[in-house]
Amino acid sequence: MVARAQRLDVKAAPELCCAQSAGQTLQAKPRALVSAGTMPSALPSPKNSDREAWGSRICISSATWRINSDIHPWYDCVGHLDMDTPVSPSSARRGALARCAGYFITAHHSLGRDFISSHPGGDVILNAAGGSIDPFWKIFNIHHKQYVYDILEQYRVGVIDPTDLVNGEVPSAVIDDPFEKDPTRDARMLMHTEKPCNAEPPGEVLNEFLTPNELFFVRNHLWVPDVSDPEEHEVTIVTFDGDEVTFTVRELRQIFKEHSVTAVLQCSGNRRSHMSKQGGDTQGLPWDVGAIGNAKWTGVLLRDVLREVGLDVNEPPEDVQHVQFLGSEAYGASIPIDKAVDRRGDVLLVYQMNDQPLPKDHGAPLRVLVPGHVAARSVKWVKKIILSDEESQSQWQQRDYKCFGPNIKNDPDWSSAPAIQEMPVQSAVTAVRSSGSKISKGADRTNVISTHDADSERTILEGYAFSGGGRTIVRVDVSTDGGRTWDQAELLASPSQGSKSWCWQRWQYSVPAGAVGEGFLVKAVDEAYNTQPEGYGPNWNFRGNLTCGWQRVPANKPEEPQGR
Amino acid sequence: MVARAQRLDVKAAPELCCAQSAGQTLQAKPRALVSAGTMPSALPSPKNSDREAWGSRICISSATWRINSDIHPWYDCVGHLDMDTPVSPSSARRGALARCAGYFITAHHSLGRDFISSHPGGDVILNAAGGSIDPFWKIFNIHHKQYVYDILEQYRVGVIDPTDLVNGEVPSAVIDDPFEKDPTRDARMLMHTEKPCNAEPPGEVLNEFLTPNELFFVRNHLWVPDVSDPEEHEVTIVTFDGDEVTFTVRELRQIFKEHSVTAVLQCSGNRRSHMSKQGGDTQGLPWDVGAIGNAKWTGVLLRDVLREVGLDVNEPPEDVQHVQFLGSEAYGASIPIDKAVDRRGDVLLVYQMNDQPLPKDHGAPLRVLVPGHVAARSVKWVKKIILSDEESQSQWQQRDYKCFGPNIKNDPDWSSAPAIQEMPVQSAVTAVRSSGSKISKGADRTNVISTHDADSERTILEGYAFSGGGRTIVRVDVSTDGGRTWDQAELLASPSQGSKSWCWQRWQYSVPAGAVGEGFLVKAVDEAYNTQPEGYGPNWNFRGNLTCGWQRVPANKPEEPQGR
Repeated sequence: MVARAQRLDVKAAPELCCAQSAGQTLQAKPRALVSAGTMPSALPSPKNSDREAWGSRICISSATWRINSDIHPWYDCVGHLDMDTPVSPSSARRGALARCAGYFITAHHSLGRDFISSHPGGDVILNAAGGSIDPFWKIFNIHHKQYVYDILEQYRVGVIDPTDLVNGEVPSAVIDDPFEKDPTRDARMLMHTEKPCNAEPPGEVLNEFLTPNELFFVRNHLWVPDVSDPEEHEVTIVTFDGDEVTFTVRELRQIFKEHSVTAVLQCSGNRRSHMSKQGGDTQGLPWDVGAIGNAKWTGVLLRDVLREVGLDVNEPPEDVQHVQFLGSEAYGASIPIDKAVDRRGDVLLVYQMNDQPLPKDHGAPLRVLVPGHVAARSVKWVKKIILSDEESQSQWQQRDYKCFGPNIKNDPDWSSAPAIQEMPVQSAVTAVRSSGSKISKGADRTNVISTHDADSERTILEGYAFSGGGRTIVRVDVSTDGGRTWDQAELLASPSQGSKSWCWQRWQYSVPAGAVGEGFLVKAVDEAYNTQPEGYGPNWNFRGNLTCGWQRVPANKPEEPQGR
Repeated sequence: MVARAQRLDVKAAPELCCAQSAGQTLQAKPRALVSAGTMPSALPSPKNSDREAWGSRICISSATWRINSDIHPWYDCVGHLDMDTPVSPSSARRGALARCAGYFITAHHSLGRDFISSHPGGDVILNAAGGSIDPFWKIFNIHHKQYVYDILEQYRVGVIDPTDLVNGEVPSAVIDDPFEKDPTRDARMLMHTEKPCNAEPPGEVLNEFLTPNELFFVRNHLWVPDVSDPEEHEVTIVTFDGDEVTFTVRELRQIFKEHSVTAVLQCSGNRRSHMSKQGGDTQGLPWDVGAIGNAKWTGVLLRDVLREVGLDVNEPPEDVQHVQFLGSEAYGASIPIDKAVDRRGDVLLVYQMNDQPLPKDHGAPLRVLVPGHVAARSVKWVKKIILSDEESQSQWQQRDYKCFGPNIKNDPDWSSAPAIQEMPVQSAVTAVRSSGSKISKGADRTNVISTHDADSERTILEGYAFSGGGRTIVRVDVSTDGGRTWDQAELLASPSQGSKSWCWQRWQYSVPAGAVGEGFLVKAVDEAYNTQPEGYGPNWNFRGNLTCGWQRVPANKPEEPQGR
């Protein structure tokens, strides 16, 4: 009953305060992770001028500072406490300071519920409390991005006294690398970050209806959990009454009927680089068209498992509104109960991918598959499934995977937008086959659009189209004259399994080589006759989620960034 | 068992041929309508040159001509038989000819299944067989449009000998007016056509969350059936096994639990005039923003009724894929079985609208409500409900309510696009409140956007947003600088009933009067983060269906037509 336990902890102690300063003892979980011996005996009092300077981003709680979680959670971990500059780590407050990128910041302050729960690494951040975060950032090197440093600069409270450095670095403890047991990845993958692993395949792979396992995009938020005996891996179902029923993977296979579904998984950041280039900078990994893949998934229906533990799957009680999933590494997300019990929803607990054992990077030994929904809901390495009246409170549900208006540059009211579940209609070009050099590959497409030698008479465009919610793609339109006239691409056969159109629609378009004109524009239409928006600026969102503007493949010259 | 009977008829006699020429007797239904006495004793043999001239639009079956239904069904009724020109109606074949708009055409030829079933008036066309269609077109005056005449011109086979005219017209019989018992409409309605009635309300009506019954848009395909005793009106459920179970409205009320749902009905032609103006001419009625309304509908769940007649609504058999509805006047359409039995689908058999008895124009005494789907599926005056393995074969299912690419000007492969069911995300402006004259009402918005005196300091925009499938509107974006920057409209409270977001989202946006800039652009986003397309040209379709480009309300000058 992890979810309930978390909820109770929070109610009992809304802030996990510094023990000494707030006169409270640490809660069970932090206590196990934070070394009390490194804590300061007192916290500084804020000065009024500081309050003004920091504005609403910092508020005061008793004698401690508390950082509001009103900025992106990736950056919340770089809040600060100490207003004195310069501060020496050899001072009395040394233990209260953490260092990053040459600046002093602190990871040791009043950590509210929002802060910890919204940190992508979960409680892991508490390992750094009272010390340097350097060794952690050497592991979680996803932090080493210019835009992280730019925001970090706002939080600079001082520079480290050089006499305190050893070999140019702040002395820090040696820690274990949680990514040590991550699998080796195929060398052909385009690696965006290694720890955690975020990688997409080269373009030619996306021309296949089924994406090979070893080349399926990897979007890990943390490390890959190490499971010694896959068949004995346990998943626990927590009913709304709080009862727990645990199945091993072996038992799931034995008890329930096996089902196979062909389905796309698409990261909400797919094509983000297109939005950044044409609509303006966004936060997040610069995925090209490859943060998507299509596979045959085999496992058991979540609907069957929920029925087995006593849920009326045809008429679930009103109290049960969401199904939360918790991964072994700390990731969490949820889906609406109606998707989970829909007899045509095809939500699976998966142990096979493309008729092979599920690979480690894709959730072995057991993952959730929520076809038609953003991949962030298909929780990998699932260990707990919780029936609840509320969504997952993880930041992947409450924050990261949402979209806001183009006027919202940061600091949104996170609750004002729903968590992404079903996705909008999408299409992309995965290959341009031409014997000439008429078609530019473009700087941002180098790795995912291949220019092959082909029939010298024709230029051939290939790609995928997809829509959320199982909505069928009914048409793919292509223009070679900047959108003035359009023609239809050929929709290729899609031998899929499942109750709805969960898989992508492969398409192809061929024109005489001399008729390429201004290059190509592509847009798709789904069965609800939703279509893709033309531009990127009017649909820009600061997180760069759900990029689905028309893809433009220009002739002759690389695509120019467009103003917003 | 109407559907099965029709299907059998077709299998047994794929063409309802002229009795004498094909040596067959007419099928039961046509026989009742066609006067055999007016039939010709022989049909002309086609000449090879004619075959070439007419191309694929006419094919030959035995000694008769049959018109392929590969053109728009409204025009199929003007196919021809006789290749001799000029042809005199006083000739031996006089009875085989019908006259329209001064041309000879025929309504008396081999009427194949497609022809009759695809004619909007259903079997009614057979009344004209063997005679002039003039008296019918005087009633069904929806035919009197330039684009109808333009297409008719293609079918001209001759001009009538003036000596055969009486008072300048072809002599024809007096017929009854089936629209005679249509109700009187509110004088405030903007009438597009009277027979059948197609009318939308003035703009200020659309500013209310619930649209008043007498001002709710009327989209009739034929006349309003006259029901003498509403409580004794019968609806027959035809199960997949062919069993029929009949309920009166009184029995429906007695047997089943009553449900109320607040839901939008939107015609697929809503905002068609915007597409015609900005994307190019389209076929169909020039609806403005008022072919939509929101009401509280009360009745019984179709799911409950289907369960009562023996359907397993939680696991319908694979054979049952569609639920067909047949109206008392001849209209027919269908929905997928999954929508019909979805416990959150809220499909109703409705007898009350906004707590009043259902008005005649809206389907009294009983209509279907399919919330989240295009209004064309919410069949009015329903008399038969058929569980089937196939869609309705009516042209409203197979033809009219589909969308094609902007390159398809006519003559599409109708089977290449799915019947519209769920609709795309939509929004529109229903009022601009300004004390000045800064905002143009625009020629096409005269009747639906009111300019009221208002606070002289502010200009206030009001409107609705809506998406199909019960998907919630999560944001309405407004731009006053041509789309360079955006802001969010305020989403107003929507006190609705139902399992999903079936009703529209009213919104309001206010700017200082001096900040109107270039006028307004509006676009909405739904929970699947689908959004409206920017332009009209790239999403133009020749039927003008599902217009949902950004609405533009320009400042100072009326909106200019844009090239495609």
